[in-house]
Amino acid sequence: MSVFDTATAVTAAGPGRWTADLSEGWAIGGGLNGGYLLATVGRAVAAALPAKPDPLAVGAHYLSATRPGPAEIDVAVLRDGGSVGTARAELRQGDTARIAVLATYGDLDRGRDDVRTTATPPALPPPEDCVANEPPPALGDAVSLLGRFEMRFHPDHVGWARGRPDGSGVLTAWFRLEDAREPDPLSLLLVVDALPPVTFTHGLMGWAPTLELTAHVRARPAPGWLRVTHATRNIAGGMFEEDCEVWDSADRLVAQSRQLARLPR
Amino acid sequence: MSVFDTATAVTAAGPGRWTADLSEGWAIGGGLNGGYLLATVGRAVAAALPAKPDPLAVGAHYLSATRPGPAEIDVAVLRDGGSVGTARAELRQGDTARIAVLATYGDLDRGRDDVRTTATPPALPPPEDCVANEPPPALGDAVSLLGRFEMRFHPDHVGWARGRPDGSGVLTAWFRLEDAREPDPLSLLLVVDALPPVTFTHGLMGWAPTLELTAHVRARPAPGWLRVTHATRNIAGGMFEEDCEVWDSADRLVAQSRQLARLPR
Repeated sequence: MSVFDTATAVTAAGPGRWTADLSEGWAIGGGLNGGYLLATVGRAVAAALPAKPDPLAVGAHYLSATRPGPAEIDVAVLRDGGSVGTARAELRQGDTARIAVLATYGDLDRGRDDVRTTATPPALPPPEDCVANEPPPALGDAVSLLGRFEMRFHPDHVGWARGRPDGSGVLTAWFRLEDAREPDPLSLLLVVDALPPVTFTHGLMGWAPTLELTAHVRARPAPGWLRVTHATRNIAGGMFEEDCEVWDSADRLVAQSRQLARLPR
Repeated sequence: MSVFDTATAVTAAGPGRWTADLSEGWAIGGGLNGGYLLATVGRAVAAALPAKPDPLAVGAHYLSATRPGPAEIDVAVLRDGGSVGTARAELRQGDTARIAVLATYGDLDRGRDDVRTTATPPALPPPEDCVANEPPPALGDAVSLLGRFEMRFHPDHVGWARGRPDGSGVLTAWFRLEDAREPDPLSLLLVVDALPPVTFTHGLMGWAPTLELTAHVRARPAPGWLRVTHATRNIAGGMFEEDCEVWDSADRLVAQSRQLARLPR
């Protein structure tokens, strides 16, 4: 099994309950990466909705910083009929709630085959001409996360990594998991929260805690590198929205997400 | 009390439980308007989090069509500390779940006063030069909703109302509630789902059932007309995303939302 599949594994522990052993390999800032946690919860939801294999819309509210180690995930199915099923899930460590999730699942192979996407994929030079990810100095040792995947940034858009943020509010990179683990709908729940916060482009180099993140998985991704864009247009009131798009190697827009996060202090 | 405030009122009915009498005045397609229901649930959440008056991030999964008449809303507070509180809520009619919600509330007056919004408000002629809303013929008698507010569309962008959809994927209008009821953070939960589906611009004139909608309220709106934009960039697999922006009379981007909806049949 790949590192990703091992780290997001869940074990049935009774009706509506799963356990997970959260890996320190996904640490970032003051806790574990929000996308890693979302994918782990997503596995428990998939187990609770066996006839609806794929996440379609998954929304998470982050309640407190999650630590490596044991966690329990409670899942309650709210609807399971027709083409979609909906469940709520909560991940806890001891008595402390970490994440609350609402998720609607279905089968991406059963959708209509019409595609009228007007969005266009990001323009990126080939991966070998892009800039590999390195831990941002401001985050220091707290970044085991960056070993979990490869990111390759557009060489013209990494001023933030060199002390010259461009203020664009847009961040774009190639992305793939370690172990040559190919993307699937579940892993896209990680991908939408894997890049650095888009506020890096404004020179705000700290960790930006997510309050809420909702992901829509729109198609089963083709194998190969993904292209990921983060963008923000509304930094205000100490918070910002971050929109993410994930494009696969077949030029399909396979996932969209938006999160509301706090600005770094 | 305005029609909006009366129709969204909730009554305490025990610990963590509220009742509502859902008004037939908000009917659309096969049920009641999703934004109306979100605002009603939002009132119960506000009552459960008295020190956190304003919705910041509210996500809803729509489980079944809601009917006019009595409903119960169960609210469980998951976190209430520091500057934000989070609750989950479910609206039921009898034994049938209608909507599941996760909501993070706070106080919009306590945020930092920085505004670095790079998004720009939609360009609209003055309301008196725009086109008033009329019930789309395809929806027939099932549209009591349109009496609840005024919409004034850009005169160059209403081809869809005249049998000549422009395929733009963008819909923009002025908006205000009836009774001269001024906007507030709670009413924005209605506003983000009040315009016709953006798929009208593609000539798809039917009702588009929402699977999931998440709204971010980013500032307390100034009095007066709001400007509302709906946009879609990814119609595929029988579904589409609809992004909504709400701008107030002071040119502030006060709310953003995204929903995942099914294409009309």
